[in-house]
Amino acid sequence: MRMVDIIAKKRDGHELTTAEIEFFVKQYTDGHIPDYQASAFLMAIYFQNMTERERADLTMAMVNSGETVDLSAIEGIKVDKHSTGGVGDTTTLVLAPLVAALDVPVAKMSGRGLGHTGGTIDKFETIPGFKVEIDIEDFIQQVNRDKVAIIGQSGNLAPADKKLYALRDVTATVNSIPLIASSIMSKKIAAGADAIVLDVKTGAGAFMKTQAEAEELAHAMVKIGHNVGRRTMAIISDMSQPLGYAVGNALEVKEAIDTLKGHGPRDLHELVLTLGSQMVVLAGKAATLEQAREKLLEVMHNGKAIEKFKELVAKQGGDSRVIDEPERLPQATYQIALPAKRSGFVTSMIADEIGIAAMQLGAGRATKDDVVDFAVGIVLHKKVGDAIAEGESLLTIHSNRADVDAIKQKLYDSIVIAEQGAAQQLIHKVITE
Amino acid sequence: MRMVDIIAKKRDGHELTTAEIEFFVKQYTDGHIPDYQASAFLMAIYFQNMTERERADLTMAMVNSGETVDLSAIEGIKVDKHSTGGVGDTTTLVLAPLVAALDVPVAKMSGRGLGHTGGTIDKFETIPGFKVEIDIEDFIQQVNRDKVAIIGQSGNLAPADKKLYALRDVTATVNSIPLIASSIMSKKIAAGADAIVLDVKTGAGAFMKTQAEAEELAHAMVKIGHNVGRRTMAIISDMSQPLGYAVGNALEVKEAIDTLKGHGPRDLHELVLTLGSQMVVLAGKAATLEQAREKLLEVMHNGKAIEKFKELVAKQGGDSRVIDEPERLPQATYQIALPAKRSGFVTSMIADEIGIAAMQLGAGRATKDDVVDFAVGIVLHKKVGDAIAEGESLLTIHSNRADVDAIKQKLYDSIVIAEQGAAQQLIHKVITE
Repeated sequence: MRMVDIIAKKRDGHELTTAEIEFFVKQYTDGHIPDYQASAFLMAIYFQNMTERERADLTMAMVNSGETVDLSAIEGIKVDKHSTGGVGDTTTLVLAPLVAALDVPVAKMSGRGLGHTGGTIDKFETIPGFKVEIDIEDFIQQVNRDKVAIIGQSGNLAPADKKLYALRDVTATVNSIPLIASSIMSKKIAAGADAIVLDVKTGAGAFMKTQAEAEELAHAMVKIGHNVGRRTMAIISDMSQPLGYAVGNALEVKEAIDTLKGHGPRDLHELVLTLGSQMVVLAGKAATLEQAREKLLEVMHNGKAIEKFKELVAKQGGDSRVIDEPERLPQATYQIALPAKRSGFVTSMIADEIGIAAMQLGAGRATKDDVVDFAVGIVLHKKVGDAIAEGESLLTIHSNRADVDAIKQKLYDSIVIAEQGAAQQLIHKVITE
Repeated sequence: MRMVDIIAKKRDGHELTTAEIEFFVKQYTDGHIPDYQASAFLMAIYFQNMTERERADLTMAMVNSGETVDLSAIEGIKVDKHSTGGVGDTTTLVLAPLVAALDVPVAKMSGRGLGHTGGTIDKFETIPGFKVEIDIEDFIQQVNRDKVAIIGQSGNLAPADKKLYALRDVTATVNSIPLIASSIMSKKIAAGADAIVLDVKTGAGAFMKTQAEAEELAHAMVKIGHNVGRRTMAIISDMSQPLGYAVGNALEVKEAIDTLKGHGPRDLHELVLTLGSQMVVLAGKAATLEQAREKLLEVMHNGKAIEKFKELVAKQGGDSRVIDEPERLPQATYQIALPAKRSGFVTSMIADEIGIAAMQLGAGRATKDDVVDFAVGIVLHKKVGDAIAEGESLLTIHSNRADVDAIKQKLYDSIVIAEQGAAQQLIHKVITE
């Protein structure tokens, strides 16, 4: 088998065999196929796409390119949730303890990554003392005992995906549905998930700018999941404006606490219930989505959800007092209000611009060596559709430096106030096949 | 300027600027752009094509990536001829002295390359003593004095093309019209041509298997030539069967001698007159193609053409006695006839299969370290359309080993004799824009 022939076959629009895909992934991971052949191949895939069968084969070849996490020692159906990323996305912090409170086992492996704010791991580490570098045996034991544990991604999971992603990033082959879908799914499957709930974001703050693209990606991932024997479903949710009110690590932890108590921002609350219901049903802990939603609301209101969070924090070495005393979380030196320049309705809050503003305050990483400032960020007071009066505060900037004039201007530029406005729809679609 | 953005721009079907193309060629040649970005870019070009302007820019950027030959010291319009390659293509050996006999300056720079038989340089070196490693000053002086000289390609002409070609070969990006056209044209222009006559082959023995592809390539090259200020034209000629009768180095030299004397094989004679007329007109030595053809026939018949060849051989150190005594050329030990198995008409002689048979005898190079055996090859006695009787010789195998059974079988498999047959058209089209 010669790589040049495999490239030509894909270039000419033919379907590759399982053996050809496995050959590519194995030989490339082992360094026997050079980057220049891999990148030409990726560009050929960009133009010629992959069939459902090819996508499933690519996913499993990437899973098998390295270690896989064996969660079979954990009782029950292990449901993982994945979001394609956005601004102010606090859902994992809420969902992990929330569904665990209903005995759904949550063995959460997460990364740091680059972005407007830190990753899920960074957000947990905002809590003083919280440790994510735990032993895999202890991790499994903790899930069996408490139903929830968070561990930093370690080991050599899907190294083929890691190597290919780095190559795609510099060869303009990131934005390809079969490549994105197999990349995400390979990581989830390597991390041991039995069932997967996907939250595919769409809008200005998302990777998929249009709903059509988001739906295509969602379908692609759900199909891969089904073809490799994992219960999988996806929702398409809005990321044209930030999710919830908080954008920034400690600020989002505080918002997660509020949401677990049942009084989070309306959109975050709704998204958590939608995704959570799916997780509970996939895990077999409720017969219908309606039943699952009722149970989730119950544990929010009877305190079991927040207790589960408190327990998780304590078990992983964190200071669980932050839950009742959120002022123990890192606080920024300056809180600076941004007053509205006119009265009207908020019609647009461009999510990625607000995310970049948060990153410029220090909340996120532009390169992997950047240090995240947990305290800083932005707290919105209004969302799209809300009425506002001139001079009323649109948002508060939490900063550790006094001079935020440029950031203020950026925020003004990314928020539109007009005569009339309507709320933005949050959940666009549920995709189950 | 970032290469990843240039790849994305081409991937999305946008036209690149001159500066972007120059950036790519220069930085890639200098080793600052890695192969993996170049190959992804080439694959994007494969799918998205290039505009006429982009093709001209790519050509000139490759010309300017290294040294160029300055032929300005040679009086007159320097016309170069390029063939896209085929089996038994002896035209350059004939054309160089033929048009020089009409005072068209021929400063021929040629390579060895891989193929069924040697390159033009190998064919000249078949003549005992013939030297192609001459000084560039002497080369120019010789053209000014005698109108014709042959030099082996040396120096660092179009290094970007060389590097890109090697990459295309292993990334399934060879077969792209803009890339092929700019590659050929960059080498001709770097070698100093004022005007270029292109012979684009089509058929089984050619790189372009169909006439439509051949025409597309011819148009592409002619347009590039015009856009960079070189008089350029192309013909599309048949390469479904070998050109002339001889396939092999010394055998082709002998055939070239016959053709210069006016009694070459009908197809080679006709092709040489067609291409030669164009060269003579482009060089301004005749007003019309008809006039040029008459003049060429005149120097064939009055002996000036063969005298010019004799002079060329002598001036470059070769034994010019070979012209009157071709038995002084290397001779193979065995001459083995291939008798027809039935009577009828030859309807097909698959050019590339016959070429491979000649290479297997030792006439060509499969890898660049192979040594060419000048003596061996194949001499056809019949061409497509000719009648043949059972037992009559189809061709003679010239071999330095006695056992040629496998080659005989290969040749039988590549020649079809049927009840009825018609001659194959040689010149399919003349393309001037």
